[in-house]
Amino acid sequence: MKTKDDCIFCKLANGEIPTNKIYEDERFTVIMDANPVSRGHSLIIPKNHYENVFELGDEEVAAVYPLAKRLATGMKEALSADGLNILQNNGAAAGQSVFHFHMHLIPRYEQAENNAGLLEFRSAGISDEEIQEICKKLGAIF
Amino acid sequence: MKTKDDCIFCKLANGEIPTNKIYEDERFTVIMDANPVSRGHSLIIPKNHYENVFELGDEEVAAVYPLAKRLATGMKEALSADGLNILQNNGAAAGQSVFHFHMHLIPRYEQAENNAGLLEFRSAGISDEEIQEICKKLGAIF
Repeated sequence: MKTKDDCIFCKLANGEIPTNKIYEDERFTVIMDANPVSRGHSLIIPKNHYENVFELGDEEVAAVYPLAKRLATGMKEALSADGLNILQNNGAAAGQSVFHFHMHLIPRYEQAENNAGLLEFRSAGISDEEIQEICKKLGAIF
Repeated sequence: MKTKDDCIFCKLANGEIPTNKIYEDERFTVIMDANPVSRGHSLIIPKNHYENVFELGDEEVAAVYPLAKRLATGMKEALSADGLNILQNNGAAAGQSVFHFHMHLIPRYEQAENNAGLLEFRSAGISDEEIQEICKKLGAIF
């Protein structure tokens, strides 16, 4: 196991600190988020230490969405959720606060009190011309 | 190809409507979001029609995060982004507005004008006791 000494999510994922654990397999541990933004807000955390998606190992990259789908599907039914966000933040500029890869599963409810503004989109006001320029740059990735 | 007649994303992913296309392979098309929340905001869209993650086919579930990592990594470098969100909304209650599965890749920049409140988390104020009860319910999924 590739862990980092001072990483809280390494300790949570590998059972060194008690937590509200939902599931684990050889690669991942799923726990309840300690500061939930909705009823059922959970985290998929790899047992190995990777800071973010840019570092995430090939096995975990391939396995994480199959696990997310399984969890999301069960979660929607178990909690009678109306919808669900799957969110994964990389870097402080993207709102990441613990620097060990984690994927948020956030069940959503039509009647939730804190719905307004939660995970809100806001236009960056980018022109069509600039969008086309960026598109060319990104096409060159592949 | 499993498509739906009146679905705009089926038409975009399969080249029936012109769009700012970044990439395509046998399963997915990657395009620029028409209403970007940041410079480079892009969408991974399966060519087959699936409404959401609950319906997403096994092949696409396994292939989507490997593609997302590849795109995210190239995007961070090509656009000199400081971070990146990967977000996938399921259901109107979760902010989904086009009902064909899509994954948002949202590069983030420390200095962006619209950073404040973008994709903001907001506590739902759920007690530790309720978190533990939910945890038991979710553990029963597996």
